[in-house]
Amino acid sequence: MDPRAADLLGRPIVGQLGFVGLDGYPHVLPVWFEHRDGDVLIGSPAGAYKGRALARDGRAALSVSTVERPYLIVSVVGDAAVERLPEKERIEFISAVAIRYLGEVKGREYLEVWSRGGHPGDGELIRLRPRKINFYVS
Amino acid sequence: MDPRAADLLGRPIVGQLGFVGLDGYPHVLPVWFEHRDGDVLIGSPAGAYKGRALARDGRAALSVSTVERPYLIVSVVGDAAVERLPEKERIEFISAVAIRYLGEVKGREYLEVWSRGGHPGDGELIRLRPRKINFYVS
Repeated sequence: MDPRAADLLGRPIVGQLGFVGLDGYPHVLPVWFEHRDGDVLIGSPAGAYKGRALARDGRAALSVSTVERPYLIVSVVGDAAVERLPEKERIEFISAVAIRYLGEVKGREYLEVWSRGGHPGDGELIRLRPRKINFYVS
Repeated sequence: MDPRAADLLGRPIVGQLGFVGLDGYPHVLPVWFEHRDGDVLIGSPAGAYKGRALARDGRAALSVSTVERPYLIVSVVGDAAVERLPEKERIEFISAVAIRYLGEVKGREYLEVWSRGGHPGDGELIRLRPRKINFYVS
């Protein structure tokens, strides 16, 4: 992988997840994600729209781009699997991701509300296996 | 349309265009756009990948979201047509869009380079007709 792509995937920039919706149309949603061991990992509540759509058609894309010019852009296209994420692993994953995006202090505040007294319940993990990763500057 | 959706589409935030690529996979690309008369308009060089893909399958999405929490998100899903954009109209459109995103001074600087001495040639206009516009806060 282009090291500039890996660098951009490591920055706390919201990812843009593309998938085919249950209506057959492409959809794009901003998501928190983590790039780990070559996969793009996204947490989701159980039964959410994106998880249901991806369980039906796992083809997906994730793009990350900077807000200002020159736009640095990384575009991942690949196959997503939707896995059950038991409560304990879910708390670990969402904690890591919230702190990645919000920092330690605001991340902890977020998690306090999110975790509903420590019992957010099970969730889902969307695991996107890249087939192609492109980096470009626009 | 929810007035908060119209407001967000009017801000100079890069849009995230979702479409089905020539490989059959969803793709997401950051684009400058303008929301005009109910349509989402995107300029493109002639023969670019997104235009070729959308000419084959016009189903598309465009999302806009704020960079910081609370994330305000507008998601447009609809049908795109790819129209030829003659040089004169192309210059007008790209000028409006560059100034919308970069402001008057930086927009003019951008256009100076972009227009290749006033003759950028013909291009394409991607016209996305919304079927559904959703606004939400995350």
